Amino acid sequence: MKIGIVGGTGDIGEGMAMRLSPIFDVIVGSRESEKAEQTCRMGLELQKKRGIDCSLTGVTNQIAIDDADVIILAIPFKHLSGTLGTLHGFEGKTVISPVNPMEKRDFFTCVPPEEGSAALMIQRILPPSARICTAFNMIAANKWKALEEELAYSVPVCGDDDAAKREVMAIVNKVSKLQSFDAGPLAASCLVESLTPLLLNIARYNKMRDVGIQFH
Amino acid sequence: MKIGIVGGTGDIGEGMAMRLSPIFDVIVGSRESEKAEQTCRMGLELQKKRGIDCSLTGVTNQIAIDDADVIILAIPFKHLSGTLGTLHGFEGKTVISPVNPMEKRDFFTCVPPEEGSAALMIQRILPPSARICTAFNMIAANKWKALEEELAYSVPVCGDDDAAKREVMAIVNKVSKLQSFDAGPLAASCLVESLTPLLLNIARYNKMRDVGIQFH
Repeated sequence: MKIGIVGGTGDIGEGMAMRLSPIFDVIVGSRESEKAEQTCRMGLELQKKRGIDCSLTGVTNQIAIDDADVIILAIPFKHLSGTLGTLHGFEGKTVISPVNPMEKRDFFTCVPPEEGSAALMIQRILPPSARICTAFNMIAANKWKALEEELAYSVPVCGDDDAAKREVMAIVNKVSKLQSFDAGPLAASCLVESLTPLLLNIARYNKMRDVGIQFH
Repeated sequence: MKIGIVGGTGDIGEGMAMRLSPIFDVIVGSRESEKAEQTCRMGLELQKKRGIDCSLTGVTNQIAIDDADVIILAIPFKHLSGTLGTLHGFEGKTVISPVNPMEKRDFFTCVPPEEGSAALMIQRILPPSARICTAFNMIAANKWKALEEELAYSVPVCGDDDAAKREVMAIVNKVSKLQSFDAGPLAASCLVESLTPLLLNIARYNKMRDVGIQFH
Protein backbone atom coordinates (compact mmCIF):
# COMPACT_ATOMS: atom_id res chain seq x y z
CA MET A 1 0.00 0.00 0.00
CA LYS A 2 1.25 3.46 -0.91
CA ILE A 3 0.86 6.10 1.78
CA GLY A 4 1.46 9.72 0.78
CA ILE A 5 2.36 12.25 3.47
CA VAL A 6 1.49 15.85 2.61
CA GLY A 7 3.84 17.94 4.74
CA GLY A 8 6.13 14.94 5.08
CA THR A 9 9.22 17.04 5.84
CA GLY A 10 7.65 18.79 8.84
CA ASP A 11 8.33 17.70 12.39
CA ILE A 12 5.47 15.22 12.66
CA GLY A 13 5.42 14.20 8.98
CA GLU A 14 9.08 13.21 9.08
CA GLY A 15 8.56 11.07 12.19
CA MET A 16 5.53 9.41 10.60
CA ALA A 17 7.55 8.67 7.45
CA MET A 18 10.25 6.97 9.52
CA ARG A 19 7.75 4.83 11.42
CA LEU A 20 5.59 3.92 8.41
CA SER A 21 8.25 3.28 5.75
CA PRO A 22 9.38 -0.13 7.05
CA ILE A 23 5.74 -1.30 6.72
CA PHE A 24 4.30 0.60 3.72
CA ASP A 25 5.55 2.33 0.58
CA VAL A 26 5.79 5.88 1.88
CA ILE A 27 5.73 8.86 -0.47
CA VAL A 28 7.00 11.95 1.31
CA GLY A 29 5.52 15.18 -0.07
CA SER A 30 6.81 18.69 0.45
CA ARG A 31 6.33 22.06 -1.22
CA GLU A 32 9.77 21.53 -2.78
CA SER A 33 10.67 18.05 -3.97
CA GLU A 34 14.38 18.63 -3.16
CA LYS A 35 13.55 18.95 0.52
CA ALA A 36 11.48 15.75 0.41
CA GLU A 37 14.27 13.91 -1.41
CA GLN A 38 16.76 15.03 1.23
CA THR A 39 14.50 13.87 4.08
CA CYS A 40 14.15 10.49 2.37
CA ARG A 41 17.91 10.11 1.80
CA MET A 42 18.58 10.82 5.48
CA GLY A 43 15.75 8.50 6.54
CA LEU A 44 16.99 5.64 4.36
CA GLU A 45 20.53 6.02 5.72
CA LEU A 46 19.34 6.10 9.32
CA GLN A 47 17.19 3.00 8.84
CA LYS A 48 19.99 1.20 6.98
CA LYS A 49 22.28 1.73 10.00
CA ARG A 50 19.56 0.13 12.12
CA GLY A 51 19.45 -2.80 9.67
CA ILE A 52 15.91 -1.94 8.58
CA ASP A 53 14.70 -1.97 4.99
CA CYS A 54 12.24 0.72 4.08
CA SER A 55 10.48 2.33 1.14
CA LEU A 56 10.74 6.13 1.05
CA THR A 57 10.31 8.38 -1.99
CA GLY A 58 10.53 12.19 -1.87
CA VAL A 59 8.31 14.22 -4.21
CA THR A 60 6.09 17.32 -4.21
CA ASN A 61 2.90 17.32 -2.15
CA GLN A 62 0.87 17.08 -5.37
CA ILE A 63 2.75 13.99 -6.62
CA ALA A 64 2.41 12.41 -3.16
CA ILE A 65 -1.37 12.80 -3.52
CA ASP A 66 -1.44 11.57 -7.12
CA ASP A 67 0.69 8.47 -6.46
CA ALA A 68 -0.73 7.34 -3.09
CA ASP A 69 -3.69 5.17 -2.11
CA VAL A 70 -3.95 6.75 1.33
CA ILE A 71 -2.98 10.36 2.10
CA ILE A 72 -1.96 11.74 5.50
CA LEU A 73 -2.31 15.51 5.93
CA ALA A 74 0.63 16.25 8.27
CA ILE A 75 -0.02 19.98 8.18
CA PRO A 76 -0.34 22.42 11.12
CA PHE A 77 -3.91 23.69 11.43
CA LYS A 78 -2.97 27.28 10.60
CA HIS A 79 -1.62 26.20 7.17
CA LEU A 80 -4.33 23.63 6.44
CA SER A 81 -6.76 25.71 4.42
CA GLY A 82 -4.00 27.48 2.44
CA THR A 83 -2.16 24.26 1.62
CA LEU A 84 -5.28 22.34 0.57
CA GLY A 85 -6.22 25.25 -1.71
CA THR A 86 -3.08 24.62 -3.80
CA LEU A 87 -3.66 20.84 -4.17
CA HIS A 88 -6.13 18.58 -6.03
CA GLY A 89 -6.69 14.93 -6.88
CA PHE A 90 -8.26 13.77 -3.62
CA GLU A 91 -11.26 12.21 -5.39
CA GLY A 92 -12.01 8.72 -4.07
CA LYS A 93 -8.90 8.60 -1.87
CA THR A 94 -8.67 7.82 1.81
CA VAL A 95 -7.45 10.95 3.62
CA ILE A 96 -6.16 10.83 7.20
CA SER A 97 -6.30 14.00 9.32
CA PRO A 98 -4.05 14.08 12.40
CA VAL A 99 -4.69 17.84 12.58
CA ASN A 100 -5.59 19.55 15.86
CA PRO A 101 -7.03 23.09 15.76
CA MET A 102 -5.39 24.32 18.94
CA GLU A 103 -3.89 27.45 20.39
CA LYS A 104 -1.43 28.14 23.16
CA ARG A 105 -2.58 30.90 25.49
CA ASP A 106 -1.50 30.60 29.13
CA PHE A 107 -2.53 26.99 28.55
CA PHE A 108 -3.35 24.90 25.48
CA THR A 109 -6.91 24.92 24.22
CA CYS A 110 -8.97 23.70 21.29
CA VAL A 111 -10.17 26.44 18.92
CA PRO A 112 -12.23 24.61 16.32
CA PRO A 113 -13.14 26.27 13.01
CA GLU A 114 -16.79 27.05 12.31
CA GLU A 115 -17.29 23.59 10.77
CA GLY A 116 -16.77 22.16 14.30
CA SER A 117 -13.42 20.44 13.82
CA ALA A 118 -10.35 20.42 11.54
CA ALA A 119 -11.56 17.13 10.01
CA LEU A 120 -14.96 18.64 9.19
CA MET A 121 -13.24 21.67 7.65
CA ILE A 122 -11.16 19.30 5.48
CA GLN A 123 -14.40 17.55 4.47
CA ARG A 124 -15.86 20.88 3.35
CA ILE A 125 -12.74 21.80 1.31
CA LEU A 126 -12.07 18.42 -0.37
CA PRO A 127 -14.29 16.82 -3.03
CA PRO A 128 -17.24 14.81 -1.63
CA SER A 129 -15.74 11.48 -2.77
CA ALA A 130 -12.65 11.93 -0.55
CA ARG A 131 -12.98 9.53 2.38
CA ILE A 132 -11.79 11.45 5.42
CA CYS A 133 -10.81 9.89 8.74
CA THR A 134 -9.07 11.29 11.82
CA ALA A 135 -6.14 9.31 13.21
CA PHE A 136 -2.81 9.80 14.96
CA ASN A 137 -3.99 13.11 16.47
CA MET A 138 -2.31 12.79 19.85
CA ILE A 139 1.08 11.33 18.99
CA ALA A 140 3.76 13.96 19.51
CA ALA A 141 6.59 14.53 17.00
CA ASN A 142 9.15 13.43 19.61
CA LYS A 143 7.35 10.11 20.02
CA TRP A 144 7.20 9.49 16.27
CA LYS A 145 10.93 10.18 16.00
CA ALA A 146 12.11 8.09 18.98
CA LEU A 147 12.37 4.99 16.79
CA GLU A 148 13.78 2.78 19.57
CA GLU A 149 10.69 3.41 21.73
CA GLU A 150 7.42 1.52 21.32
CA LEU A 151 4.30 3.62 20.72
CA ALA A 152 1.94 1.94 23.20
CA TYR A 153 -1.03 4.27 22.77
CA SER A 154 -4.70 4.18 21.90
CA VAL A 155 -5.69 5.93 18.67
CA PRO A 156 -9.32 7.00 18.18
CA VAL A 157 -10.44 6.99 14.53
CA CYS A 158 -13.46 8.96 13.31
CA GLY A 159 -14.94 8.76 9.81
CA ASP A 160 -18.15 8.45 7.84
CA ASP A 161 -17.03 5.82 5.28
CA ASP A 162 -16.91 2.40 6.94
CA ALA A 163 -14.48 0.83 4.47
CA ALA A 164 -12.07 3.78 4.74
CA LYS A 165 -12.32 3.68 8.52
CA ARG A 166 -11.49 -0.03 8.62
CA GLU A 167 -8.55 0.60 6.27
CA VAL A 168 -7.22 3.41 8.51
CA MET A 169 -7.71 1.34 11.68
CA ALA A 170 -5.73 -1.51 10.07
CA ILE A 171 -2.90 0.92 9.19
CA VAL A 172 -2.83 2.25 12.77
CA ASN A 173 -2.69 -1.27 14.20
CA LYS A 174 0.42 -2.10 12.14
CA VAL A 175 2.48 0.75 13.61
CA SER A 176 4.48 -0.20 16.71
CA LYS A 177 2.02 -1.01 19.52
CA LEU A 178 -0.63 1.51 18.51
CA GLN A 179 -4.18 0.29 18.99
CA SER A 180 -7.01 1.85 17.01
CA PHE A 181 -10.53 2.46 18.34
CA ASP A 182 -13.58 3.41 16.31
CA ALA A 183 -14.59 6.80 17.74
CA GLY A 184 -17.70 7.25 15.60
CA PRO A 185 -18.58 9.53 12.68
CA LEU A 186 -16.58 12.54 11.52
CA ALA A 187 -19.09 14.76 13.32
CA ALA A 188 -17.61 13.42 16.59
CA SER A 189 -14.06 14.36 15.60
CA CYS A 190 -14.07 17.54 17.73
CA LEU A 191 -13.85 15.24 20.79
CA VAL A 192 -10.72 13.59 19.38
CA GLU A 193 -9.15 16.92 18.45
CA SER A 194 -9.67 18.13 22.05
CA LEU A 195 -7.33 15.42 23.36
CA THR A 196 -4.01 16.87 22.22
CA PRO A 197 -4.33 20.24 24.02
CA LEU A 198 -5.51 18.31 27.13
CA LEU A 199 -2.41 16.07 26.99
CA LEU A 200 -0.15 19.09 26.43
CA ASN A 201 -1.67 20.77 29.51
CA ILE A 202 -1.16 17.61 31.55
CA ALA A 203 2.46 17.37 30.39
CA ARG A 204 3.04 21.00 31.27
CA TYR A 205 1.34 21.16 34.67
CA ASN A 206 2.70 17.80 35.88
CA LYS A 207 6.21 18.29 34.45
CA MET A 208 5.85 15.22 32.24
CA ARG A 209 7.19 14.74 28.72
CA ASP A 210 5.02 13.83 25.73
CA VAL A 211 2.02 12.40 27.57
CA GLY A 212 0.14 9.64 25.75
CA ILE A 213 -3.24 8.02 26.30
CA GLN A 214 -4.74 4.57 26.61
CA PHE A 215 -8.41 3.54 26.65
CA HIS A 216 -9.34 0.36 28.47
CA MET B 1 -12.52 15.54 56.24
CA LYS B 2 -16.23 15.95 55.56
CA ILE B 3 -17.26 15.53 51.93
CA GLY B 4 -20.81 16.53 51.01
CA ILE B 5 -22.38 15.08 47.89
CA VAL B 6 -25.15 17.19 46.35
CA GLY B 7 -27.26 14.73 44.36
CA GLY B 8 -25.86 11.92 46.47
CA THR B 9 -28.82 9.59 45.82
CA GLY B 10 -28.42 9.72 42.03
CA ASP B 11 -26.70 7.00 40.08
CA ILE B 12 -23.22 8.50 40.20
CA GLY B 13 -23.61 10.22 43.57
CA GLU B 14 -24.57 6.95 45.27
CA GLY B 15 -21.56 5.15 43.79
CA MET B 16 -19.27 7.98 44.89
CA ALA B 17 -20.70 7.84 48.41
CA MET B 18 -19.96 4.11 48.61
CA ARG B 19 -16.38 4.53 47.44
CA LEU B 20 -15.59 7.62 49.52
CA SER B 21 -17.28 6.72 52.83
CA PRO B 22 -14.64 4.22 54.01
CA ILE B 23 -12.03 7.01 53.64
CA PHE B 24 -13.85 10.26 54.49
CA ASP B 25 -16.91 11.38 56.45
CA VAL B 26 -19.45 11.44 53.65
CA ILE B 27 -22.61 13.55 53.88
CA VAL B 28 -25.13 12.41 51.31
CA GLY B 29 -27.45 15.19 50.15
CA SER B 30 -30.76 14.82 48.35
CA ARG B 31 -33.78 16.99 47.71
CA GLU B 32 -35.56 14.92 50.37
CA SER B 33 -33.59 13.90 53.44
CA GLU B 34 -35.60 10.64 53.75
CA LYS B 35 -34.22 9.44 50.43
CA ALA B 36 -30.67 10.32 51.50
CA GLU B 37 -31.16 8.54 54.84
CA GLN B 38 -32.40 5.42 53.03
CA THR B 39 -29.41 5.44 50.66
CA CYS B 40 -27.08 5.71 53.66
CA ARG B 41 -28.81 2.89 55.59
CA MET B 42 -28.48 0.60 52.57
CA GLY B 43 -24.88 1.68 52.02
CA LEU B 44 -23.90 1.07 55.64
CA GLU B 45 -25.50 -2.39 55.56
CA LEU B 46 -23.77 -3.32 52.33
CA GLN B 47 -20.37 -2.17 53.60
CA LYS B 48 -20.91 -3.91 56.94
CA LYS B 49 -21.45 -7.21 55.09
CA ARG B 50 -18.13 -6.59 53.35
CA GLY B 51 -16.53 -5.97 56.77
CA ILE B 52 -15.86 -2.33 56.00
CA ASP B 53 -16.45 0.55 58.38
CA CYS B 54 -17.74 3.72 56.84
CA SER B 55 -19.13 7.13 57.69
CA LEU B 56 -22.35 7.98 55.83
CA THR B 57 -24.96 10.55 56.86
CA GLY B 58 -28.10 11.32 54.84
CA VAL B 59 -29.44 14.88 54.84
CA THR B 60 -30.84 17.50 52.45
CA ASN B 61 -28.61 18.98 49.76
CA GLN B 62 -28.51 22.26 51.74
CA ILE B 63 -27.35 20.59 54.95
CA ALA B 64 -24.74 18.60 52.97
CA ILE B 65 -23.33 21.93 51.78
CA ASP B 66 -23.51 23.57 55.21
CA ASP B 67 -21.83 20.68 57.05
CA ALA B 68 -19.11 19.72 54.55
CA ASP B 69 -15.59 21.01 53.93
CA VAL B 70 -15.59 19.81 50.32
CA ILE B 71 -18.71 19.58 48.16
CA ILE B 72 -19.18 17.33 45.11
CA LEU B 73 -21.90 18.40 42.66
CA ALA B 74 -23.16 15.01 41.45
CA ILE B 75 -25.89 16.57 39.32
CA PRO B 76 -26.70 15.91 35.64
CA PHE B 77 -25.87 18.95 33.52
CA LYS B 78 -29.50 19.60 32.60
CA HIS B 79 -30.43 20.04 36.29
CA LEU B 80 -27.28 21.91 37.30
CA SER B 81 -28.46 25.50 36.94
CA GLY B 82 -31.90 24.79 38.47
CA THR B 83 -30.48 22.89 41.45
CA LEU B 84 -27.76 25.44 42.23
CA GLY B 85 -30.41 28.19 42.15
CA THR B 86 -32.13 26.61 45.18
CA LEU B 87 -28.94 26.28 47.26
CA HIS B 88 -26.52 28.63 49.07
CA GLY B 89 -23.58 28.58 51.46
CA PHE B 90 -20.79 27.77 49.00
CA GLU B 91 -18.66 30.72 50.22
CA GLY B 92 -15.03 29.69 50.75
CA LYS B 93 -15.73 26.00 50.16
CA THR B 94 -13.98 23.65 47.78
CA VAL B 95 -16.49 22.53 45.15
CA ILE B 96 -15.83 19.56 42.85
CA SER B 97 -17.61 19.40 39.48
CA PRO B 98 -17.74 15.98 37.79
CA VAL B 99 -20.41 17.39 35.45
CA ASN B 100 -20.25 16.83 31.68
CA PRO B 101 -22.43 18.99 29.40
CA MET B 102 -23.15 16.33 26.82
CA GLU B 103 -25.93 15.18 24.54
CA LYS B 104 -26.75 11.91 22.84
CA ARG B 105 -27.62 12.34 19.18
CA ASP B 106 -26.67 9.49 16.85
CA PHE B 107 -23.47 9.67 18.87
CA PHE B 108 -22.43 11.39 22.10
CA THR B 109 -21.13 14.91 21.87
CA CYS B 110 -20.12 17.78 24.11
CA VAL B 111 -22.53 20.74 24.12
CA PRO B 112 -20.93 23.29 26.42
CA PRO B 113 -22.93 26.23 27.81
CA GLU B 114 -22.02 29.75 26.71
CA GLU B 115 -19.49 30.03 29.55
CA GLY B 116 -17.42 27.37 27.73
CA SER B 117 -17.84 24.45 30.16
CA ALA B 118 -20.05 23.21 32.99
CA ALA B 119 -17.33 24.10 35.49
CA LEU B 120 -17.16 27.68 34.19
CA MET B 121 -20.95 27.91 34.38
CA ILE B 122 -20.78 26.76 38.02
CA GLN B 123 -18.14 29.42 38.64
CA ARG B 124 -20.49 32.08 37.26
CA ILE B 125 -23.42 30.90 39.41
CA LEU B 126 -21.60 30.36 42.73
CA PRO B 127 -20.11 33.13 44.90
CA PRO B 128 -16.57 34.22 43.87
CA SER B 129 -15.01 32.75 47.02
CA ALA B 130 -16.14 29.19 46.10
CA ARG B 131 -13.06 27.27 44.99
CA ILE B 132 -14.19 25.20 42.02
CA CYS B 133 -12.29 22.23 40.57
CA THR B 134 -13.23 19.58 38.03
CA ALA B 135 -12.60 15.95 38.98
CA PHE B 136 -14.05 12.47 38.47
CA ASN B 137 -15.62 13.52 35.13
CA MET B 138 -15.06 10.26 33.25
CA ILE B 139 -15.84 7.62 35.83
CA ALA B 140 -19.09 5.89 34.94
CA ALA B 141 -21.77 5.11 37.55
CA ASN B 142 -21.26 1.37 36.97
CA LYS B 143 -17.57 1.72 37.78
CA TRP B 144 -18.26 3.66 40.98
CA LYS B 145 -20.73 0.99 42.09
CA ALA B 146 -18.63 -2.10 41.28
CA LEU B 147 -16.99 -1.98 44.70
CA GLU B 148 -14.98 -5.18 44.18
CA GLU B 149 -13.25 -3.69 41.13
CA GLU B 150 -10.27 -1.35 41.31
CA LEU B 151 -10.64 2.04 39.63
CA ALA B 152 -7.30 2.17 37.77
CA TYR B 153 -7.86 5.43 35.90
CA SER B 154 -6.29 8.81 35.38
CA VAL B 155 -8.29 11.79 36.65
CA PRO B 156 -7.53 15.25 35.24
CA VAL B 157 -8.20 18.09 37.71
CA CYS B 158 -8.72 21.70 36.60
CA GLY B 159 -9.01 24.68 38.92
CA ASP B 160 -7.85 28.24 39.54
CA ASP B 161 -7.12 27.98 43.29
CA ASP B 162 -3.88 26.08 43.86
CA ALA B 163 -4.62 25.03 47.43
CA ALA B 164 -8.07 23.73 46.48
CA LYS B 165 -6.61 21.88 43.50
CA ARG B 166 -3.99 20.18 45.67
CA GLU B 167 -6.74 19.24 48.16
CA VAL B 168 -8.90 17.73 45.38
CA MET B 169 -5.95 15.88 43.84
CA ALA B 170 -5.14 14.38 47.26
CA ILE B 171 -8.77 13.23 47.63
CA VAL B 172 -8.70 11.62 44.16
CA ASN B 173 -5.44 9.80 44.93
CA LYS B 174 -6.98 8.20 48.04
CA VAL B 175 -9.80 6.52 46.08
CA SER B 176 -8.99 3.01 44.83
CA LYS B 177 -6.20 3.27 42.25
CA LEU B 178 -7.26 6.60 40.81
CA GLN B 179 -4.37 8.89 39.89
CA SER B 180 -4.92 12.63 39.65
CA PHE B 181 -3.23 14.91 37.10
CA ASP B 182 -3.19 18.71 37.16
CA ALA B 183 -4.94 19.67 33.91
CA GLY B 184 -4.51 23.44 34.29
CA PRO B 185 -6.88 26.30 35.07
CA LEU B 186 -10.68 26.11 35.07
CA ALA B 187 -10.64 27.77 31.62
CA ALA B 188 -9.18 24.49 30.28
CA SER B 189 -12.01 22.39 31.77
CA CYS B 190 -13.85 22.14 28.42
CA LEU B 191 -11.09 19.72 27.33
CA VAL B 192 -11.75 17.51 30.35
CA GLU B 193 -15.53 17.63 29.85
CA SER B 194 -15.03 16.45 26.23
CA LEU B 195 -13.55 13.15 27.41
CA THR B 196 -16.72 11.47 28.65
CA PRO B 197 -18.67 11.69 25.36
CA LEU B 198 -15.50 10.46 23.57
CA LEU B 199 -15.26 7.46 25.90
CA LEU B 200 -18.97 6.74 25.49
CA ASN B 201 -18.55 6.78 21.70
CA ILE B 202 -15.57 4.44 21.94
CA ALA B 203 -17.54 2.07 24.18
CA ARG B 204 -20.45 2.12 21.78
CA TYR B 205 -18.60 1.73 18.47
CA ASN B 206 -16.16 -0.91 19.76
CA LYS B 207 -18.75 -2.85 21.78
CA MET B 208 -16.87 -2.22 25.02
CA ARG B 209 -18.31 -1.54 28.44
CA ASP B 210 -17.52 1.54 30.54
CA VAL B 211 -14.27 2.59 28.87
CA GLY B 212 -11.74 4.33 31.12
CA ILE B 213 -8.62 6.33 30.41
CA GLN B 214 -4.98 6.45 31.48
CA PHE B 215 -2.36 9.10 30.76
CA HIS B 216 1.28 8.04 30.74
